[in-house]
This record gives sequence, structure tokens and C-alpha cells, in this order.
Amino acid sequence: MRNFTYEASTKILFGKNRIVEIGNEILPYGNSVLLAYGGGSVKKSGLYDKIVEVLNNSGIRLVELAGIQPNPRVESVREGIRLCREHDVKFILGVGGGSVIDCIKAIAMGVAYEGDVWDFYIRKAKMESVLPIGAVLTLAATGSEMNGGTVISNDATKEKRATGHDSLRPKFSVLDPTITFTVNNWQTAAGVVDVMSHIFEQYFTQDKGTFVQDAMAEGILKTCIHYGPILLKDPENYEARANIMWASSLALNGLTATGKLSGDWATHMIEHEVSAIYDLTHGAGLAILFPVWMDYILDEKTAPKLAQYSRNVWGVKEDDDVEAARQGITKTREFFNAMNMPASLEDVKITNENIEAMAEGACKFGPVGMYKRLGKEDVAAILTKAL
Amino acid sequence: MRNFTYEASTKILFGKNRIVEIGNEILPYGNSVLLAYGGGSVKKSGLYDKIVEVLNNSGIRLVELAGIQPNPRVESVREGIRLCREHDVKFILGVGGGSVIDCIKAIAMGVAYEGDVWDFYIRKAKMESVLPIGAVLTLAATGSEMNGGTVISNDATKEKRATGHDSLRPKFSVLDPTITFTVNNWQTAAGVVDVMSHIFEQYFTQDKGTFVQDAMAEGILKTCIHYGPILLKDPENYEARANIMWASSLALNGLTATGKLSGDWATHMIEHEVSAIYDLTHGAGLAILFPVWMDYILDEKTAPKLAQYSRNVWGVKEDDDVEAARQGITKTREFFNAMNMPASLEDVKITNENIEAMAEGACKFGPVGMYKRLGKEDVAAILTKAL
Repeated sequence: MRNFTYEASTKILFGKNRIVEIGNEILPYGNSVLLAYGGGSVKKSGLYDKIVEVLNNSGIRLVELAGIQPNPRVESVREGIRLCREHDVKFILGVGGGSVIDCIKAIAMGVAYEGDVWDFYIRKAKMESVLPIGAVLTLAATGSEMNGGTVISNDATKEKRATGHDSLRPKFSVLDPTITFTVNNWQTAAGVVDVMSHIFEQYFTQDKGTFVQDAMAEGILKTCIHYGPILLKDPENYEARANIMWASSLALNGLTATGKLSGDWATHMIEHEVSAIYDLTHGAGLAILFPVWMDYILDEKTAPKLAQYSRNVWGVKEDDDVEAARQGITKTREFFNAMNMPASLEDVKITNENIEAMAEGACKFGPVGMYKRLGKEDVAAILTKAL
Repeated sequence: MRNFTYEASTKILFGKNRIVEIGNEILPYGNSVLLAYGGGSVKKSGLYDKIVEVLNNSGIRLVELAGIQPNPRVESVREGIRLCREHDVKFILGVGGGSVIDCIKAIAMGVAYEGDVWDFYIRKAKMESVLPIGAVLTLAATGSEMNGGTVISNDATKEKRATGHDSLRPKFSVLDPTITFTVNNWQTAAGVVDVMSHIFEQYFTQDKGTFVQDAMAEGILKTCIHYGPILLKDPENYEARANIMWASSLALNGLTATGKLSGDWATHMIEHEVSAIYDLTHGAGLAILFPVWMDYILDEKTAPKLAQYSRNVWGVKEDDDVEAARQGITKTREFFNAMNMPASLEDVKITNENIEAMAEGACKFGPVGMYKRLGKEDVAAILTKAL
């Protein structure tokens, strides 16, 4: 186990009706807030009205940034930065899923930076000071509500890039499972895949001796596998929504990564290239790519950890590591299929025409993946197998 | 799953030689520190000299409180409070195991309180303001390094009482597994039992639908079962020390208790009575009492969760819940025996003479235990079975 620093400082307000508490959580930072959200669903559901009421009752002044898209665009970020500067905003509250929360993190670091905020994502700028942020989560998937990571898309350059810092962790996040009752089956399934993928990225590493992290990671995977299918049949099952929601935050708040050099993240890098061009739902892209990646990297060296996953998560009984790994990969593919996720790029109408460009993009900064290093040719091969 | 608030704010500095960083962690709070520790082992090992050097190099002024005992006494707390007031101390650094850390928490809340600090433990006083604290952990066991709980003993009243508050969580804790290389087998084993017991107390509850918490709890238990025996044979095994150390913090930082009404804690309450009178090592007392408690509370209603524990942690293959539970209890008892922990009160030379007094003490505030309520007669019966 490697040295690590762990500080998952976000205060989690979990459960029914915790929204009434957000005024008290925000006021220590000031009484002018940028309220950021996506489409109309938070208005239709009544969530928007409830939040505005709570903030008004706390004497908090609101500025609004609406229309943040899935795969949030840098244009929304720039608009948010402009609003924060113009209205001297002291706190940013995001209401939405990972896209909205990723967007407000970008705004939070951009306000005090003189250059263009995209500089942070292409490693040209270093963070100086950030505005405090909070979140009301409406979709269990990215884990952004409890970490300092942010992913933003740039249509002009056809790029989707990530950055992060501990100071970008939300001060608080409201996790009310009932808010996710209305999430449709497609987004619910994609969310479950996303949570599992975050565990995969941190689980499949070359590190040795991380038993306790791996055991907890396996517990989170089993939670997803248990409750995912329940949710597709019974979307208002509170227990299932609650377990998936808490799992989503725990899957990417740093906990299962402690003591490891780095996660793998190749599959995420590849998927980011796909969804940068095709605007595919992130979790759906991961459902296509992860089993292919597992198959592609399987060899004598990677088999033991894949076999551990197969045995501990799927209960595979097989002594040979490579064969056990294969069975686990099949179980994974079958599970994603049972969650009605696409099984191939063809399923989502993606052809082979941009494969070279996507492989090029994924490897822009060099080979990807820490568990197994993958060059451009590997990425192109994975995308081709995923067709 | 019930509503919960989770904020495990302690910054964990985990790994070799992280001690060099403590000056930077303390300075934001001030440059006068109470350095609190137990016996001579921190001096013998060179740890004391290293810490003093780091703090001196940071320009931090030191006041010392030495001689904090296992099952820390309220007298040490009072002395620490006196020193903090006299020297205008701004931060308390504890170097030790749970006893030292529990003691500095008591000091931290006592400094600003006009009455006697014991009032907090008998529920006579409410916390107002507390001094910030940090810890350098020398023993993996209590989890005190990442939570806000504190247990103090009062020889005058023959009591051992607990209290806690989020504001008592250490600002940082240094977890360097190499510091625990010299912990002897008895203390190592008692620590492992203590970690497992904390999970038991939070796992065996009447709550339903806490799958993700339970799965992570099972992961921590498996970690203890895997590495405990390795440590008895190979005390300087870094991987084993590291896993047990991180497990000890995760076992009681609130994580596995999220979404539950309350842990059980009957066995801890009973053990506190035993060690208040006999000054027994806490983990050894728990090793004696937990299998007896499991046996005692086993009935049709409690069997399902005990059976889940048996199946998921011990791999018991048995469909009948009561029988599965029995097998898991036997495995637990065998494991504690294999860790060379005492199997009965007789093993540690405790007779039946104080059973009534201990039962009385445990139930001073009414029945104990949330999984199964236990009155005085139940506690006396458990202690008698443990003889």
C-alpha cells in the first residue's frame, strides 16, 4: 500500500427533504448565490421552486445559470464566470447530475483566473483561489458531488477533458433519493454503469496489498449489481435508489483509490473521445467499452486481478485465473445487457469513420491506462472491437 | 435506509514518514501546542524525538502532558486542561493509541468549560467550544483518530463513560504503519478484535436496506480476518500493518453507520464495566464477550443478520439462518482463540464477585443494546456465561 492523503471533506446531507437545510449550509459563505441547473426537469418536478423558496427564506440573493447540457460545454462555464463576476457571487449551488456539478466546479476556479477557463483543462493554468460550491444531486452516477474532479467539453476543439483539485470538493451535497424517482430507465442504467466503471478504474491497478480498499470496492460493485435491475422494474423503490445514490458518491470520493499509485482510466479516456464527437450518454459508452477493454487487456499478468473481481463480485468458481477472468467479463457484459445498455457502437449508430481521430485524441498526451499502457493502435483496436 | 449526515472531516496522512508534515498542519491554528502521550515507549522508539524536532523546526512552542494511561483517567484530563489554560495552548497533539486520543478530546472540550470535565461524560454539560486536535497514531484499534468519540475512566466512581461530538474529530491524523511494527502480539490482537467489534456494533442493527454499508463492513471484517494472523507471525509486515491501520480508522469514522438508527453497543457498554473494575485490555474483554453476546441474543428475529454475517464474512454454506448464525459464532470464537485472546473471564482471572455491580453499571441509564434490548438480568447472564 502506498502513502496517501485522504480528506473527503464534503458534508453529505442524505435522505428525504434535506433540501430545507441548504440555507444554513450556504450562509457562512455569504448571501449571494449562483444557482446553476440544466434543463426544465428541475422546474417540472417542483424541485426548483422548493430550492428558491428555501434560499429566499434564508435571505439569499440569487443569480441563475440555466441550460447546462449533459457533457457540459465550456460556453456555459464562461457564462457562469461572467455572472459570478458581475453579481459578486459568493457561493455556487448546482442542482443536477454530474454535468451541472462539473460545470460549477469549472466556474468556481475560473472566476478568479484572468485567462480563459479552458486553460485549466489543457494544463496551461494552475488553480489559485476557488469559490465554494454545493450541490443538490438529481442523478446518481458521476460521484462529482463528493469529489474535486470536473470534466468539460469543448465543441470548438471537439475535446472532452478532465481536471481536478481537492479545493473543488463541494462544501455540502444534498443526496435525496426521492429526487431520483423520476430518472428514466436509460439514465438510471447508465448511472449504475458509471458507478461501476469508477470502481473498475480504481480497482484494476498494478498495486499490491490494497485488500481493504478492494474489499470495499467489491462491496460497492455488489450493491450496483443487486439494486440495478430492481430499479428498472421499480423506479420508486427508495431502498434501491438510496443504495445506488450513496454508492455513487462512495465510488469516486477517493476512498477506494487510497494507497494506490493511480487508477487506470483508459476506458474513461476512450469514452470521452467517443462522447465528445457523438454526444453519447457517458454510462452507455462505458457499458459498450468496458467489457471490450477487459477482454483486450486480459493476459497472464492482468488475469489475477480480473479473476479476483470475478470470484469476489460474481462468485465465479474457477481456479484458473485467465478462465475465471473470462467468466467475469462475460458476467459483466451480460449484466450491462440486462440493464438494457447498448452492447456495441453499432447499437448507438456509431460507425468506424472516426476511429483514428478518437484514438489520436485519447492518446494526445501519450499512452493511456495505468493497469496496462495502451497506445493509439491499442485504442483503435478496442474501438474497432466495440463496433 | 434512514436519513443521515456524514462528514468525516479528518485529514488522513497515511504512510511512511508522514510525521515530517505535522508542523504545516498545526501552524494554521497557532504555535503553542500541548503534546500528550502515554508511557515511555514513544521515547524509547525515537518517535518522541522526531516529533519534537519537527515541531521545533516549525517554531512551535511545546507544553507536555505525559503518562496518559490505557483506559485514560479523568485526572490526566484535568491536568491537561490546567496546562492548556496556564500556557494558552492553541492546539493539542496526541501521540499514542485510542487512550491518548480520547484523553486529548476530553481536554479539548474541557478547556473552555467552567465546571469539571467529567460533567460531559455523565451528561451534565453541553459542549460549547473545543480546541483543535491532531493525532499521531501508534496503535491500530479504537478508530478514535478519525472520529469524535471519547471514553474516559473515573477511578473515584469506578466508571468508564463515553461521549462524543463531530467537533472533536481530529483535524488531521498521521497513520504510519511502521510506527506499529513494535506493538506486541497481545496489543496487536486486541486491536484487531477492537476493530472487528466496532463493525459488529454497527452491523448488527434492526435497520433494513443498508446493503452498501453492510457490504463495506463485511470487507473491513474480512481484512481483519486475513491480516490478523499474519501480524502475529510477522509483526513487521508492512502490508498487514497498513491494512489493519486503515481498517481501524474506517471501521469507526461513521461510514458503516450511515443510514442506520443507531449501533447496538451493548457489548461495549458491558466491557466498559469490566475494564473499569479490572483494568483489562479493551480488545481482550471484547474477545471474551462478543461471542457470548452473539450466542445470547440469537433467536428467530436476530438470526437473519447473524446468518448474513456468517455467509458473507466466513463463507458459511447453510440455508437455515439459526444454524448459519451458530456456525458464524463458532468461527468468530475460533478466530479470537487463534489470535491468542482469552476465551473467558476466568482466563483473565476475573471471578463472579462483581457481576451484579457490573450489570448494574452497564444499565445505569436503562437497558443497553439496540439490536436486542438487554436489561440488568440479561447483562448479568452474559457475564456469567462469559466466566
